[in-house]
Amino acid sequence: MRLAIDAMGGDHAPKEIVLGAMDALAQIENLQITLFGDEKKIKQYVSNHTNLEIVHTTERITGEDEPVRAVKRKKNASLVLMAQAVKDNKADACISAGNTGALMSAGLFVVGRIPGIDRPALSPTLPTIDGKGFLMLDVGANVDAKPHHLMQYAIMGSIYTQKVRSISNPTVGLLNVGTEDGKGNDLAKKAFVLLQEAPINFIGNVEARDILNGAADVVITDGFSGNIALKTIEGTAETMFSMLKGTFMTSLKTKLAAGMVKNDLKGLKSKLDYSEYGGAGLFGLSSPVIKAHGSSNRRAVYNAIKQACHMVEHHVTDTIKETVESMENSKEEEN
Amino acid sequence: MRLAIDAMGGDHAPKEIVLGAMDALAQIENLQITLFGDEKKIKQYVSNHTNLEIVHTTERITGEDEPVRAVKRKKNASLVLMAQAVKDNKADACISAGNTGALMSAGLFVVGRIPGIDRPALSPTLPTIDGKGFLMLDVGANVDAKPHHLMQYAIMGSIYTQKVRSISNPTVGLLNVGTEDGKGNDLAKKAFVLLQEAPINFIGNVEARDILNGAADVVITDGFSGNIALKTIEGTAETMFSMLKGTFMTSLKTKLAAGMVKNDLKGLKSKLDYSEYGGAGLFGLSSPVIKAHGSSNRRAVYNAIKQACHMVEHHVTDTIKETVESMENSKEEEN
Repeated sequence: MRLAIDAMGGDHAPKEIVLGAMDALAQIENLQITLFGDEKKIKQYVSNHTNLEIVHTTERITGEDEPVRAVKRKKNASLVLMAQAVKDNKADACISAGNTGALMSAGLFVVGRIPGIDRPALSPTLPTIDGKGFLMLDVGANVDAKPHHLMQYAIMGSIYTQKVRSISNPTVGLLNVGTEDGKGNDLAKKAFVLLQEAPINFIGNVEARDILNGAADVVITDGFSGNIALKTIEGTAETMFSMLKGTFMTSLKTKLAAGMVKNDLKGLKSKLDYSEYGGAGLFGLSSPVIKAHGSSNRRAVYNAIKQACHMVEHHVTDTIKETVESMENSKEEEN
Repeated sequence: MRLAIDAMGGDHAPKEIVLGAMDALAQIENLQITLFGDEKKIKQYVSNHTNLEIVHTTERITGEDEPVRAVKRKKNASLVLMAQAVKDNKADACISAGNTGALMSAGLFVVGRIPGIDRPALSPTLPTIDGKGFLMLDVGANVDAKPHHLMQYAIMGSIYTQKVRSISNPTVGLLNVGTEDGKGNDLAKKAFVLLQEAPINFIGNVEARDILNGAADVVITDGFSGNIALKTIEGTAETMFSMLKGTFMTSLKTKLAAGMVKNDLKGLKSKLDYSEYGGAGLFGLSSPVIKAHGSSNRRAVYNAIKQACHMVEHHVTDTIKETVESMENSKEEEN
């Protein structure tokens, strides 16, 4: 297993990225990691050189860079070199916690798509109340999706959930404004018909209100609505934690109570922390590409590495490729 | 001020509807209320007949009815008779906590649109962390919106916020996947250009993550994304309260702490309770039509009545009408 990792992406790079990589090298067998970035800065945190390679570069893409232009012009940026290593078959998968748009561009233009998949989808696993979690895609790779894109997301999401999350016959729901058949905008109505015919366990429409309760293992939506849903979850949770903090600070009595439940509340916060499930996969590319959260700490990076290893071991990309091919073939046979 | 109220709509009808109306009659001057529904059931909760009329009908639209068909066929349903009273100028505004789709249909087909407004928008006021709240529209009246619909929503939302919520020069933001100009899907990009030219205080794109922090006084979006955002807020808040409850039940210590902050947590819950701001206005109709939340209690009904009174007193509908007319005229002069 050979992983390429952008050591310079994310709010806590390179420190937390390198420490996460160290943890992975210590705990995962047959793992080789190549870190891309400023060698001097990276080396401060390297405690073990076994199975580790560092490719030095000082060029990097920042959060302010315009994604497509940055990938085309900054050919020696750590993120671009990382993607190039996958393209050149020097690595089996790659991970970055950097600029999401730039990673999507590098995925599309450097790593390349799986033949037959029209648009990659950004696919995080989000928490549910029972701790099982669900996969949502797309959350922003493709903001102007067509019905058949959503059908491809459903196939990719099902395969990932089955292979990597070990959920057999995962339920797939279409994010919609109501649960009844026939609901939704033009896109949702047309996607519904295609999802009914796809080789997945489609359970119909699901409402945003129910997804954190585990309404479906895989929630399908277009990149615009998915991004709104994801950021609304984040914003509402943050707002509530901040209000809760305010509530606990109102009096001596509440402060005392806060002290008593402090650890339990931390547990609640970590239940909602989706970096526990790894990063967001960019599904539909010819090798696994993982977007770790920008605020990733050591543990989140370690989880993203584990996730990338699972995707490679369980041949997620090949299975998507084969499924799409066989669908194309059966379509041709029908005609 | 003459209000028509559907006494049979909502989870707690007619009891809470009638009690809310009683409170309003006691506290709001020059108010006349007509309740539509089962007279016998309504009368159980009537404590004061002054300025109250009851129009008896046993027909009603349920939550399971298909909206458009129900409004067309159930001509004597309480919701339809209520809308008809506004149409016939027997009432200045109307309120229902019943089937949202049916209320939208009755608004469109019975009450009728303001000339020049193409699509009405469902417009609730949602809580912010500072207690000020913000108006979001559309949250589901029109799931396939065009750019100029969003521009009209912005004008209607600004007028309402200024007149009824007394916020001068309210900020208007476009719900989008990023804050930078040029972000978004085709609809958002085109709407952005129109919003820049509209007679409003447009502050650009806002992200879903920031709306509960008060990113804008008025948040504009299409009915599909708006519905997803609204229901995601509801679902995330409910999930967190339920997780919080679980956290407090884990041990004797946490149970003790829970007892100490019980009232404060109730306060937190009421901060997030958007029925405090009244119901969701259906903006763009020729008279104020208010959708009270399905779970409305007496207080929520009272708040919705106050809101309807404010809309009538401050001539919100006429101001929208005049603004749209003057925009049409200036467009004609330009040509």
